[in-house]
Amino acid sequence: MSIAEQFRITKAFQIKEANAKKKLLGAAADDKNGGKAADKQATLKLAEEISDLQNLLYAEHDRKLLIILQGMDTAGKDGTVKGVFGQINPLGARTVAFKAPGTDDKNHDYLWRVHREVPGKGEITIFNRSHYEDVLITRVHDWIDVNECKRRYAQICDFERMLAETGTVILKFFLHISKTEQKARLEERLADPDKHWKFDPQDLAERKYWDAYQQAYENALLATDADHAPWYAIPADSKTQRNLVIASIVQEKMQGMKLKYPPGNPEFAKLKVE
Amino acid sequence: MSIAEQFRITKAFQIKEANAKKKLLGAAADDKNGGKAADKQATLKLAEEISDLQNLLYAEHDRKLLIILQGMDTAGKDGTVKGVFGQINPLGARTVAFKAPGTDDKNHDYLWRVHREVPGKGEITIFNRSHYEDVLITRVHDWIDVNECKRRYAQICDFERMLAETGTVILKFFLHISKTEQKARLEERLADPDKHWKFDPQDLAERKYWDAYQQAYENALLATDADHAPWYAIPADSKTQRNLVIASIVQEKMQGMKLKYPPGNPEFAKLKVE
Repeated sequence: MSIAEQFRITKAFQIKEANAKKKLLGAAADDKNGGKAADKQATLKLAEEISDLQNLLYAEHDRKLLIILQGMDTAGKDGTVKGVFGQINPLGARTVAFKAPGTDDKNHDYLWRVHREVPGKGEITIFNRSHYEDVLITRVHDWIDVNECKRRYAQICDFERMLAETGTVILKFFLHISKTEQKARLEERLADPDKHWKFDPQDLAERKYWDAYQQAYENALLATDADHAPWYAIPADSKTQRNLVIASIVQEKMQGMKLKYPPGNPEFAKLKVE
Repeated sequence: MSIAEQFRITKAFQIKEANAKKKLLGAAADDKNGGKAADKQATLKLAEEISDLQNLLYAEHDRKLLIILQGMDTAGKDGTVKGVFGQINPLGARTVAFKAPGTDDKNHDYLWRVHREVPGKGEITIFNRSHYEDVLITRVHDWIDVNECKRRYAQICDFERMLAETGTVILKFFLHISKTEQKARLEERLADPDKHWKFDPQDLAERKYWDAYQQAYENALLATDADHAPWYAIPADSKTQRNLVIASIVQEKMQGMKLKYPPGNPEFAKLKVE
């Protein structure tokens, strides 16, 4: 079973606290320190392979790669971008962080600002949060009702299918942390003045809706998982394991794209540069 | 039967030369000069009503109106914009003319540049050509095959349904001219140096594909007509009748939106401006 298959959600998918802690990859997952170092080394190797594959994607200039990262606050979205995609030439990769929508965004459908940012040919775009917020925070706080939420699931499926049909490979990662791990991470941020910039008091307010969020995630993932836009649930209590798993899946999937440099032009051999 | 119903395409829709000439509205359609003047007067009255309704749409700041104009070269898309929407405050209305896609456009799915330009809350946007070119000129010249074309019909239906579900009223007009009328209009452009700027030699090349275009239009209109995004086939050999019919439908449909100024705020009456 490929690593991607191993983490792809199934129809029976449920978000369970214990799954956030799982360690499944790496040389010595049980040995806390040795394991971490081995994870990091393995991830770095994969990140470099991803960087090489990105170069091929860029040269091919045909398909596109869209990576969607979702997860509770402190789940490690920023850390994933750095750890997994940090080796890529910024020319061909771009991260878009979707914050609370602005006036122009609210004046349009919720997919408007998202569609603008999808990758072009040869590009990798990483969404740090995405249109999934429009069926998560909105649903948790009852800003939209169940029917509107279901309508949006269908709209999202249509939208992603169109992207896939027009050449976009889509990989969606749910970074799954446990409630206790989030507590530890928030406390760490509060304790360290150098991490205060990452802390938003709103995070504490949202934490109170933990169970509702888990339910909203479970529903959304199940409703929008598709072969052309699969969801992977990644145990994310361990940062090094999280990066290792995601890097493994991205590398595996890019490898599967069978990227090649476009054929050389035999005429070029005859040209002289004077 | 409302005017909109009268021109809405049916499942038996066929593009017939004779239908381009039909005159159906106006006081004296048979009397060429008297009829034209009466048409223009009636259209101006409707255009003013549309302008008033636009003001309500703008004040309501909730729904959006998207008008799509499609037709062969010289069918009168520019003339429609001027004649029907010429009275509107430019603040709340915008025309977007879609020309041949540029490099950035081609690097993305064909709906990318279109989605960017859809109207926001309270706005009217008029598309002079649109994503329909991606199932018309592309199909006529075999740049896409039948299967890809059908896939795009479905993608377009999904996209427009999403727009409708998120508050956009969509009205699509096919400006139907006959081949003989196009000949006359092209000759007129060639004969008058002041109209040369409107002439593109490419138009003559495209004219050779007339029958293929009629078929492509017929197929596209039938495949993408929907209650939330209806197609109207407008006889367009007569410019004044064309404008009168379109103005009538737009006015009728905007009237049907039951636009109202938002309720006043009773607190405001107590405020003093000092």
